[in-house]
Amino acid sequence: MKAALEEARLAISHGDVPIGALVLDGNAVIASRHNERELRNDPTAHAELLALRDAANAAGTWRLDQMDLVVTLEPCPMCAGALISARIRHLFYGASDPKAGACGSLYNLCADPRLNHQTAVTAAVLADRAGSLLKDFFAMRRRRV
Amino acid sequence: MKAALEEARLAISHGDVPIGALVLDGNAVIASRHNERELRNDPTAHAELLALRDAANAAGTWRLDQMDLVVTLEPCPMCAGALISARIRHLFYGASDPKAGACGSLYNLCADPRLNHQTAVTAAVLADRAGSLLKDFFAMRRRRV
Repeated sequence: MKAALEEARLAISHGDVPIGALVLDGNAVIASRHNERELRNDPTAHAELLALRDAANAAGTWRLDQMDLVVTLEPCPMCAGALISARIRHLFYGASDPKAGACGSLYNLCADPRLNHQTAVTAAVLADRAGSLLKDFFAMRRRRV
Repeated sequence: MKAALEEARLAISHGDVPIGALVLDGNAVIASRHNERELRNDPTAHAELLALRDAANAAGTWRLDQMDLVVTLEPCPMCAGALISARIRHLFYGASDPKAGACGSLYNLCADPRLNHQTAVTAAVLADRAGSLLKDFFAMRRRRV
């Protein structure tokens, strides 16, 4: 999670909300990305989606069922759905997202037995640090407006 | 929807499930894509996500709130979440997906008032044709196995 927080900070330089995600194959980091929605004008360029694409590209398969994903903020419905689509084994996330979180807050997509894959979830990993990073970013942005 | 069905058929040549999606700006088609998950080994390469990325690229913004999306199959959680992330105005889909549909079947993400955008949904547009295309594809694949 510390590495994901470092990755998240890179988003600030281009005005994106600081969220970072890593894909792990055992202990090896095979993808590390941050939110690039504003940078790329791409509504799908959340950290998780970008990291999943990189990981699949590196692995040569879309089926990442031996891999885990670490992200600083609870995934939204799009990203939670992408974890399931990629068959990610275990999700570790930092801060909860009461407004859009789909892994325990508004929904719990990863645990839905009706879908064709379930991803284990560990929440609140370094949640205070992950939450502070976002809180500080939004406070800074408000001061600038 | 007829154009989306034509787009869907293109997926068969590379062994992907035939699903097609268009993004419309008024009456103009600004993106047209089909499922490329197998072709690209990309768990996020569903037709809707690819079409949204192309549309945002063409429009120069991730905020597609004046645009509509047409897709041959009910979107999964990832794709329904992507529609919301892109602020798509109206979704038109063909066949329902009782196994993974997130726009009326298992979930109705597009109508969730807790999320920061709602997308209007029209279901069952040429649903029989859209359903037959998928049914025929899976029947053909079973014969080959």
